[in-house]
Amino acid sequence: MKRAIYPGSFDPVTYGHIDIIKRASEIFDELIVAVLCNKAKTPLFSVDERVNILNEVLHDLPNIRIVSYEGLLVDFAVANNANVIVRGLRAVTDFEYELQLAQTNNVLNKGVDTVFLTTSLKYAYLSSSTVREVASYGGDIAKFVPPLVEKLTYEKFGIECNRRV
Amino acid sequence: MKRAIYPGSFDPVTYGHIDIIKRASEIFDELIVAVLCNKAKTPLFSVDERVNILNEVLHDLPNIRIVSYEGLLVDFAVANNANVIVRGLRAVTDFEYELQLAQTNNVLNKGVDTVFLTTSLKYAYLSSSTVREVASYGGDIAKFVPPLVEKLTYEKFGIECNRRV
Amino acid sequence: MKRAIYPGSFDPVTYGHIDIIKRASEIFDELIVAVLCNKAKTPLFSVDERVNILNEVLHDLPNIRIVSYEGLLVDFAVANNANVIVRGLRAVTDFEYELQLAQTNNVLNKGVDTVFLTTSLKYAYLSSSTVREVASYGGDIAKFVPPLVEKLTYEKFGIECNRRV
Amino acid sequence: MKRAIYPGSFDPVTYGHIDIIKRASEIFDELIVAVLCNKAKTPLFSVDERVNILNEVLHDLPNIRIVSYEGLLVDFAVANNANVIVRGLRAVTDFEYELQLAQTNNVLNKGVDTVFLTTSLKYAYLSSSTVREVASYGGDIAKFVPPLVEKLTYEKFGIECNRRV
Amino acid sequence: MKRAIYPGSFDPVTYGHIDIIKRASEIFDELIVAVLCNKAKTPLFSVDERVNILNEVLHDLPNIRIVSYEGLLVDFAVANNANVIVRGLRAVTDFEYELQLAQTNNVLNKGVDTVFLTTSLKYAYLSSSTVREVASYGGDIAKFVPPLVEKLTYEKFGIECNRRV
Amino acid sequence: MKRAIYPGSFDPVTYGHIDIIKRASEIFDELIVAVLCNKAKTPLFSVDERVNILNEVLHDLPNIRIVSYEGLLVDFAVANNANVIVRGLRAVTDFEYELQLAQTNNVLNKGVDTVFLTTSLKYAYLSSSTVREVASYGGDIAKFVPPLVEKLTYEKFGIECNRRV
Repeated sequence: MKRAIYPGSFDPVTYGHIDIIKRASEIFDELIVAVLCNKAKTPLFSVDERVNILNEVLHDLPNIRIVSYEGLLVDFAVANNANVIVRGLRAVTDFEYELQLAQTNNVLNKGVDTVFLTTSLKYAYLSSSTVREVASYGGDIAKFVPPLVEKLTYEKFGIECNRRV
Repeated sequence: MKRAIYPGSFDPVTYGHIDIIKRASEIFDELIVAVLCNKAKTPLFSVDERVNILNEVLHDLPNIRIVSYEGLLVDFAVANNANVIVRGLRAVTDFEYELQLAQTNNVLNKGVDTVFLTTSLKYAYLSSSTVREVASYGGDIAKFVPPLVEKLTYEKFGIECNRRV
Repeated sequence: MKRAIYPGSFDPVTYGHIDIIKRASEIFDELIVAVLCNKAKTPLFSVDERVNILNEVLHDLPNIRIVSYEGLLVDFAVANNANVIVRGLRAVTDFEYELQLAQTNNVLNKGVDTVFLTTSLKYAYLSSSTVREVASYGGDIAKFVPPLVEKLTYEKFGIECNRRV
Repeated sequence: MKRAIYPGSFDPVTYGHIDIIKRASEIFDELIVAVLCNKAKTPLFSVDERVNILNEVLHDLPNIRIVSYEGLLVDFAVANNANVIVRGLRAVTDFEYELQLAQTNNVLNKGVDTVFLTTSLKYAYLSSSTVREVASYGGDIAKFVPPLVEKLTYEKFGIECNRRV
Repeated sequence: MKRAIYPGSFDPVTYGHIDIIKRASEIFDELIVAVLCNKAKTPLFSVDERVNILNEVLHDLPNIRIVSYEGLLVDFAVANNANVIVRGLRAVTDFEYELQLAQTNNVLNKGVDTVFLTTSLKYAYLSSSTVREVASYGGDIAKFVPPLVEKLTYEKFGIECNRRV
Repeated sequence: MKRAIYPGSFDPVTYGHIDIIKRASEIFDELIVAVLCNKAKTPLFSVDERVNILNEVLHDLPNIRIVSYEGLLVDFAVANNANVIVRGLRAVTDFEYELQLAQTNNVLNKGVDTVFLTTSLKYAYLSSSTVREVASYGGDIAKFVPPLVEKLTYEKFGIECNRRV
């Protein structure tokens, strides 16, 4: 059985992430969506909130599991018997950073490989930080995130969800 | 009438910015130079200082107007009846970031398009942050910014303008 | 009046080109679509065929004009009183090539500037050569080009247009 | 069962290709190595020679199959019940080209996805064309290809295999 | 006599840096390894610690000298009669940043040129920040830095050096 | 004594090449300008013509030598006791190609290293092929090449040198 890990911050999850998750869940037998608990940064949503949102938004995908992790990704992968890391690729600067990460992880543990999926064209330039910035000004994020995430993100910025209707 | 917006931080304005502004003012009937009021960052010059400097430095261009803005650029563009955003392109990392911004703005408002001008060769690697860093060490910035900006930038760092003469 | 030139091979014209042409025709008062007569290459469609196809496909845009040219683009621009060249940008390798061209043209004639529009996301990786290659194998090109171009391209490869229906 | 396709010219196969094939064969249940029969180019080795070499060099991998194909890759994938295309990524120019291909293939057939593996560091800048060029001058290609390929490549250029020993 | 400067933060020095230093010391008659004293950042090792580590690790190279500096690199180069700056290149984002720096330095002082060496393949994606991050989680950094640096880096994070043995 | 090689096609030599040659001749004790005799391509100027032009144009540089070569560059370097290859870097696509070449050469011969100089801003997008294309249409190449090269290049295309005066 092929088990893969899709790690990320998901702060918040976007349609771009969901696209990668759906496609990866068709390629692998089981997919672990791993929410990074990065203590250095101040996230918009707590790790628990992000895990809950992902569980809501992805509940119709049978072969995925959502967990949080901290520490080295390769250690987490080994502890979960996963030998593949899945990453989405958007653009050149992404690519260089991802290459560096994949090579470092491979040096740290030869048994864990990284595969890349390219983000679908319509989400090619979407990122969580764009969502946060647009939402902070009350801009329309309905094309970037599912309705639940839209509502919760506006709430974080003290904006009523149907403000723009 | 074609009205375009050239947004930026201009902290401080460089010869690279001025080159783009002059060329854009020849392509469009009116050009709004829009100074970003970004509350998250601590700028070297206040928004008002930057607007004043731009007014001084660009006073011989008849069809431009200098204003400050905050919030979403596309909202500002619509409010000012401008349907084109002008951006300067220097290098690859610029390009990816700019592409992401242009695509996001286009999703937010289909009526606002982005056009890019490539920075002239002699200013191709010039940036406001380079100017600030060089000036902070008392380095010579006369080739990067107009005399007024040179004087004011040194003053911010407590350096007398003709130190190096 | 601002007159711009959009040069290209258009062998054949794709939805990506048409997207750029429509947007450029809204930014400038008049747009000349200039079909390059490149003697070194063997095109799929002759220059005359390409001009005719563009006239058919773009007949509803009032402020454009389709012409062929050979020689240096800046000379053609000057001869047509156009001071702006419009180019579409798709990706990094495009970008570098386009930068080189824009700088060279600017050295050849300071009075002609180049502006770039970024290709819409859904056409971001579309090119005429992709269309030709897919069509040569009888692949479906309906999402890449207008129906007329689809029909004529299949004919060039001796394939009946509704083969895949 | 997850069946993937790794397409390429393999003219000749390098240690870089073999690295990708081994890793992909661990990720997927079955891997089809598909040798492109590109009539437009004059290859160094014929398609049959390339299939034979791959069979020799990869005979210890149980879950791979080597075949040749022509036409559209997505059609070949569908005909072979494979829903994943595997590609190796080396560098930026690779990346852009591969992105274009992956997006085009996805538009042609939504049911076929592309995953990328990054080339191992030590083969990061290796290509078949480098091998051919170095071999044509009698240079040492032992670090680039297996002994069998080394011998056969030198033969193609009329060079005795142990020339440099 | 050709004297060159290799500037950097070296926080901590990696095998990638050491590779560049060894190769540069063979190309130039004398090499000054210049440790940047950047007051804006909080480093893991103090400037004095970094100079000491470099002296230990590089003591077998006769024609190098390790010093710290602050201020503009070109001023430091002139003060030390060095007319060449050496930099290592790893990837595209590096490249753009390095180009910008080299051009700025050249504008600041025409007499100081910059030469680039490409990082060896096996260290192509290694950086000091990767070392710090992996070490902070107790990950294995023995492949990234010399034993002395490994020991001292673990100490900074309160981890015993042979934890993983 | 440090001897370096600057290889290239120089078909024809441009101000960009000359800029690199002058700067490299100040960094190294001796510089061999090596004209590639590439039998696969049909050049504008023969190898002998290119060597002669370089000798004319560079006669005031005391420590350079102009030679032609064919075969593997590393073999040529070893045969000439040169342990450094000098290359000019202009842009991203250049960079990737150059990295591949440098790594391949280093695998072929560990004793030969490659250093890169970045092309001066004003020649950053200049190439021999641009010169040939502009000249073929009778365009002005005086800003790209020295007067002698301008005259000889026009002659190759059957154009009188002072046509545009």
